[in-house]
Amino acid sequence: MISNKMMEQVSKSSVIRAMFEEGNRLAKLYGRENVYDFSLGNPNVEAPEEVKKAIIEIVQQEKPGAIHSYMNNSGYEDVREAVAQHLNKKFGTAFNAHNILMTVGAAGGLNVVFKTLLNPGDEVITFAPFFGEYNSYASNYDAKLVVVPPNTVDFQPNLEAFGSMITEKTKAVIVNSPNNPTGVVYSEATILKLAQILSEKQKALGTNIYLISDEPYRELAYDGVEVPYLTKYYANTIVGYSYSKSLSLPGERIGYLVMPSEMADFENFVSAANIANRILGFVNAPSLFQRVIAKCLDAQVDLEGYNRNRELLYNNLKAFGYECIKPEGAFYMFVKAPVEDDKAFAEMAKSKNILLVPGSAFGCPGYVRIAYCVAYSTIENALPGFKALIEECQGLA
Amino acid sequence: MISNKMMEQVSKSSVIRAMFEEGNRLAKLYGRENVYDFSLGNPNVEAPEEVKKAIIEIVQQEKPGAIHSYMNNSGYEDVREAVAQHLNKKFGTAFNAHNILMTVGAAGGLNVVFKTLLNPGDEVITFAPFFGEYNSYASNYDAKLVVVPPNTVDFQPNLEAFGSMITEKTKAVIVNSPNNPTGVVYSEATILKLAQILSEKQKALGTNIYLISDEPYRELAYDGVEVPYLTKYYANTIVGYSYSKSLSLPGERIGYLVMPSEMADFENFVSAANIANRILGFVNAPSLFQRVIAKCLDAQVDLEGYNRNRELLYNNLKAFGYECIKPEGAFYMFVKAPVEDDKAFAEMAKSKNILLVPGSAFGCPGYVRIAYCVAYSTIENALPGFKALIEECQGLA
Repeated sequence: MISNKMMEQVSKSSVIRAMFEEGNRLAKLYGRENVYDFSLGNPNVEAPEEVKKAIIEIVQQEKPGAIHSYMNNSGYEDVREAVAQHLNKKFGTAFNAHNILMTVGAAGGLNVVFKTLLNPGDEVITFAPFFGEYNSYASNYDAKLVVVPPNTVDFQPNLEAFGSMITEKTKAVIVNSPNNPTGVVYSEATILKLAQILSEKQKALGTNIYLISDEPYRELAYDGVEVPYLTKYYANTIVGYSYSKSLSLPGERIGYLVMPSEMADFENFVSAANIANRILGFVNAPSLFQRVIAKCLDAQVDLEGYNRNRELLYNNLKAFGYECIKPEGAFYMFVKAPVEDDKAFAEMAKSKNILLVPGSAFGCPGYVRIAYCVAYSTIENALPGFKALIEECQGLA
Repeated sequence: MISNKMMEQVSKSSVIRAMFEEGNRLAKLYGRENVYDFSLGNPNVEAPEEVKKAIIEIVQQEKPGAIHSYMNNSGYEDVREAVAQHLNKKFGTAFNAHNILMTVGAAGGLNVVFKTLLNPGDEVITFAPFFGEYNSYASNYDAKLVVVPPNTVDFQPNLEAFGSMITEKTKAVIVNSPNNPTGVVYSEATILKLAQILSEKQKALGTNIYLISDEPYRELAYDGVEVPYLTKYYANTIVGYSYSKSLSLPGERIGYLVMPSEMADFENFVSAANIANRILGFVNAPSLFQRVIAKCLDAQVDLEGYNRNRELLYNNLKAFGYECIKPEGAFYMFVKAPVEDDKAFAEMAKSKNILLVPGSAFGCPGYVRIAYCVAYSTIENALPGFKALIEECQGLA
């Protein structure tokens, strides 16, 4: 009785649910603290104190009507202006409130962009490995996600394969840096080359191709690595941002879109995105948290917590003989499975009470994703299991 | 460059924007306090004190990780159970957490239901006058909204016309009581008859037809009028609720769906709705406000404020000679335009600095909607204008 599309989704999701239930089963058998769950991107570093302070200040100082009412579907004008000025200061851009639309997280923002742009049959290109939800977002608008095969040397996007995959049907390209699942930051050289290919193809095909930059992990970059701001490299760029990770507020559903004035069809895009935000049922980004983030623009979570996890996990896995790139951002590590079949390896890992996500879920089989946004002790306690696993795999060879 | 569907939406929306801009123009000319804006359903009665208290208590007593993190896409288990028990106490139902899905307001909830149910080409029936957004929500899933013509005698749904409009394509019927734009509460007799027609048609056609009850105004009912709880009358009923009006929290985007266990395809529906909430980009209802409403289940806005407005406006309009039904709920009055063309009348009203929405926007031309969720003084000050308007119209006749 439910729709055909959703019936398909329900069938697929049973795999993920099975994993979740396996985690619960193991937790019951061995105790929650003895199950090493690296499968979820739920930040374990807490929201900074500024958030709590801002919430209390706002509800104590302002009238409820000024905090909880409807506003323009694009968000409070002053909050949008504050976000724009913050970006300008940080990246030397020239945005104002009109370029910003407050959204229900990055997921809400990406749906607004897809709804705004995509006709049925349109194509959106992404680079493997990629966040699996892009498939569902494209399908929501009967568009097709076209996946460029991975470059497993350094996990920068595979730009050789990319060019030939752009056609008249290509409406958008979506990139995610720092990347989920690899933790790789797309370099400036990559972005320059990507922008060049897109510009040439636009000209050759006589179309506009939008570059969508999905940036929930922007603030999570280690060792001072620079994450290029894409609107500066390519005019038809839209940025989707979220405070889910930068302020550890994933449950609050607060983020924004940046729509630069120089993009093609700008005024229609801005009007349509405002309407899409309304008719998709978001209506507006949660109002109190719009006010909260405006007071916390310079706040940040304790990055050092994630960094310690990164070092501990990376150094030990390398010492054990695992192959992987040292992540420069986000809180994921993408490790080559020591047996060919990533799903089989994730199954093996469960025997050590270790939960991982197979790379197949990100369009990149042969690897597993480790989400290290967990307690330091969880990593410490899981290390003997990781060591035993690779030894067992080597024994199999 | 934007999608065809959204280009159409942008063109249509320019009418509403024009009205909004006209309001701003008048406000500049005459001062904001001298423009009587009855066009928006933005509650003017403030959120009850319990909301503020709950917010402060939660952020002071709990760790950020317990307030702002991801949870199951359907919402916190304990919040869903609390909502279920609250409904059971109030309506004698037998729900539990499994029957509740926390949503981004009612608009988010309705999109989740439509996404879950509708294949392209499916039909959703509603009764004029109706909330115009239903058209967009149906269009999001390539379904068709079929509108039963109004019964302008008492604005109960026109059940005579209804039966013959149900076909094999009818996947759902959506009702809204207390109603926007009429303020009418659908009576128990109406609901019994509606349920009977649906049951007979299900049997005759061999299909399941879901009844969707959109209830953002449930708590806004005057003179002790009862608003029937529809799951008790018809098994295939889904309820969409919102705290936007009952707690004056429209900006916060918090509501829920009720999916009764006895509905057809229950388990698949629950799974699909959970996934739809995720892939449409809501992910989950805002987390802090899930906790807040669980602490405010018995709180309520000051209904007497709206009631005073209702009495003042209704009694005076009737005395001036306007035709209208006394609303039993919500904060809208649906008044027969004293000239045939409702759009022309709304134009005339602007000359008195009065902003109204033509009934055509709700599928019911010849009427205008007055949203009386405004300051009492706004109504007092607008009354001479309303009197002059009907006198001018009578002069035209």
